[in-house]
Amino acid sequence: MRAYDIIKKKRDGGELDEAEIRFIVDGFTAGEIPDYQMSAWLMAVYYMGMSAEETVALTKCMTESGDRLDLSGIKGVKADKHSTGGVGDKTSFIVGPLLAALGVPVAKMSGRGLGHTGGTIDKLACIPGFNVELSKEDFVNNVNDIGMAIASQTGNLAPADKKIYALRDVTATVDSIPLIASSIMSKKLASGADIITLDVKCGSGAFMKDYQGALVLAKTMTDIGRMYGKPTHALVTDMDEPLGHMVGNSMELKEAVRVLSLKDVRSAVAGDRGLARLVEVCVKLITIELMLAEKAVKMGIAAVTGDDALETDKIAEYEARVIEAIENGSGLKKLSEVVERQGGDASYIFEPEKLVVAPIKVPVNAWEDGFLTACRADEVGMTNLILGGGRATKESEIDVSVGVEILKCLGEPVKKGEPFAYIYAADESKVDEAVKRLSGAYEISAVNTAEHKLTTPVVKEYI
Amino acid sequence: MRAYDIIKKKRDGGELDEAEIRFIVDGFTAGEIPDYQMSAWLMAVYYMGMSAEETVALTKCMTESGDRLDLSGIKGVKADKHSTGGVGDKTSFIVGPLLAALGVPVAKMSGRGLGHTGGTIDKLACIPGFNVELSKEDFVNNVNDIGMAIASQTGNLAPADKKIYALRDVTATVDSIPLIASSIMSKKLASGADIITLDVKCGSGAFMKDYQGALVLAKTMTDIGRMYGKPTHALVTDMDEPLGHMVGNSMELKEAVRVLSLKDVRSAVAGDRGLARLVEVCVKLITIELMLAEKAVKMGIAAVTGDDALETDKIAEYEARVIEAIENGSGLKKLSEVVERQGGDASYIFEPEKLVVAPIKVPVNAWEDGFLTACRADEVGMTNLILGGGRATKESEIDVSVGVEILKCLGEPVKKGEPFAYIYAADESKVDEAVKRLSGAYEISAVNTAEHKLTTPVVKEYI
Repeated sequence: MRAYDIIKKKRDGGELDEAEIRFIVDGFTAGEIPDYQMSAWLMAVYYMGMSAEETVALTKCMTESGDRLDLSGIKGVKADKHSTGGVGDKTSFIVGPLLAALGVPVAKMSGRGLGHTGGTIDKLACIPGFNVELSKEDFVNNVNDIGMAIASQTGNLAPADKKIYALRDVTATVDSIPLIASSIMSKKLASGADIITLDVKCGSGAFMKDYQGALVLAKTMTDIGRMYGKPTHALVTDMDEPLGHMVGNSMELKEAVRVLSLKDVRSAVAGDRGLARLVEVCVKLITIELMLAEKAVKMGIAAVTGDDALETDKIAEYEARVIEAIENGSGLKKLSEVVERQGGDASYIFEPEKLVVAPIKVPVNAWEDGFLTACRADEVGMTNLILGGGRATKESEIDVSVGVEILKCLGEPVKKGEPFAYIYAADESKVDEAVKRLSGAYEISAVNTAEHKLTTPVVKEYI
Repeated sequence: MRAYDIIKKKRDGGELDEAEIRFIVDGFTAGEIPDYQMSAWLMAVYYMGMSAEETVALTKCMTESGDRLDLSGIKGVKADKHSTGGVGDKTSFIVGPLLAALGVPVAKMSGRGLGHTGGTIDKLACIPGFNVELSKEDFVNNVNDIGMAIASQTGNLAPADKKIYALRDVTATVDSIPLIASSIMSKKLASGADIITLDVKCGSGAFMKDYQGALVLAKTMTDIGRMYGKPTHALVTDMDEPLGHMVGNSMELKEAVRVLSLKDVRSAVAGDRGLARLVEVCVKLITIELMLAEKAVKMGIAAVTGDDALETDKIAEYEARVIEAIENGSGLKKLSEVVERQGGDASYIFEPEKLVVAPIKVPVNAWEDGFLTACRADEVGMTNLILGGGRATKESEIDVSVGVEILKCLGEPVKKGEPFAYIYAADESKVDEAVKRLSGAYEISAVNTAEHKLTTPVVKEYI
């Protein structure tokens, strides 16, 4: 077998078998196939795509290239949720504790943020003492004891993906659905969960800008998971504006605590579109995971593969249970237990005003009367990055206290000279640029072309 | 400017400007842009193609990457002929001397053969003493004195092309018309001729297997030459079977001498399809060059750019002059002068039986009655390579004495058990494989589906 022939076969639209994909992936990872052949192959894949079987084979090779976490020491059916990355996405802090409170073990491995989207691990750094570097034993024990643990990704998970991604990043071959899907899924499958739920973001703040692309990505990833034998579902959710009001590490954690503290969810979200968007995504993600996990416990894991696993007639019933777990405070209590167990100061959960927020609060005012009709959500994320709250490169140090508070959602009216957002800065010198960037992220029009956004579900598709 | 952005722009179908192309070509040649970015870019070019302007810019950057031969010391309008490579192609030994005999200076730089096609320089090695390593001064002086010189390519011509081609060769990005065209033309343009004539081979023994592809390649190359300001024309010629009867270095030179020795061209080619094919290509190539060169001498070089430069009503008249130069022996005489001037034994030209031919002559017999209906001409070339007459790699030593003599052309009848070809081997051990390979290269059918080949012109298109 020669790399040249595999490049040529893919270039000419041929379908590669698992042995050919393994040859190129393993050879490249081992340094036997040079970068320049791999990048030519990746560009050919960019143009010619991959069949479902090829994508599964690629995922498999990357998954098997490194460590695979063994979570068999954790009792029960382990659920994992993964988001493709959005702005203001704090769902992990809401979904995890609620799922755990509802009896589903949550063994969460998370990464740090890069670019305009934040990372779960960064947000946890806001709580003094919180330790994300758990040993394998502590990780397993914590889940068994209190139902949840959250740790920084360790081990040598999917090193082939890591090496291939680094090459894609400099050769303009990132934007390929089979390559994105296999990259995400190789890490998920190496992480050892029994049930995988994917939140595929779609819109201006997401990797996939359009609905059709997000749909294909979601289907590709669920196909991989299912062909791999793991019950995998996905939601395609709106990311044309940030999720919730808050963007910034400390502020996002605070907003998660706010959701977990709601005493009457339905009345809280009525009239608060920002909160409603966030709650909707969380409740629906938990509903899927809870439904599948309980089915797997009752009927065995084999019963929850494939499309028919979602019992749509029971969705309302499950959603009611999720909302109850918010309203009776069990989700908040679970989060505090996790914080305490991992060495953090749990008082920050019950008194979220303790979470540090940058001192310089500057309004971002509407420049005319009208309606917010468009948002480049990635630019809202970039505003936080400019303020110091995000990473431009892997080595950047971040300031968890800075951020953006969005007061209005798309379709809502604004008045000239009144704020539609606030910036929280640690440093006066960054304020002007941040205000300019955030203003530039929004459009205000006299005609409310985004009115439909106020009534459109955030979850666009169950897959 | 960043290589990444240039890759992405091409990937997305954008048109690169000269500065962008220069950035990537110069950066790669200087080792500043890594192989893996160049190969991703080349694969994007493979899929997205290049506009005429981009192809010219790429050619220009590669031409300017190294030495450009200064032939201004040569008096007159210098013509150069280049073939894209075929099997049995000995036209250089016929075209050059005849053009020179007709008063057009021929300053010929040639390469060695690689793969299934032979090289002009290799064929010259059959003449004892012939020196292809001429100094710049001798090269120029010889052309001025006797009208022609032929030398091995020297100098650092188009090093960017050399480096890019080496990368294309291992990344399945060779088969791209703009890349092929710019590669050939960058070397031609660096070689300093005033008028360029291209013989674009088309068929089973050529790089371009089909007529449409050859046409596009020919047009792309002539466009480059013309946009570069050089009168450039091309013929698309048939390569579905070898050109002439002989394949093999010494045997091809011998056949060239045979053509230059013809006393009555028209009667010689009547009924000898193999000879007719060879003579047709040579006469038409010379006709173009002669017509353009004489026009350039009379009216200035500026008058011979563009499509309208070929005066089709005068083609017959020019062809008659070419045939006369064969029949009156002036072409043969010119070849002997070149040989003598470059230190070779000119008696080999007048007594071509001196040219060494391998001693083991083995017939390749027809396996049934019928007609030769198809030929994989590249396999005929490979037969010569197996016998030791070609180079598998740049380092291979070749045996100029071996080869193949083809007795019959496509469309001609064969009789079971009678030879349609001979193999000339230096080594018994290679005979069986060579016979098998050559037999496998041909198809014999009871129905003469290739009859049209006997009457079809070899030159398919003037461009």
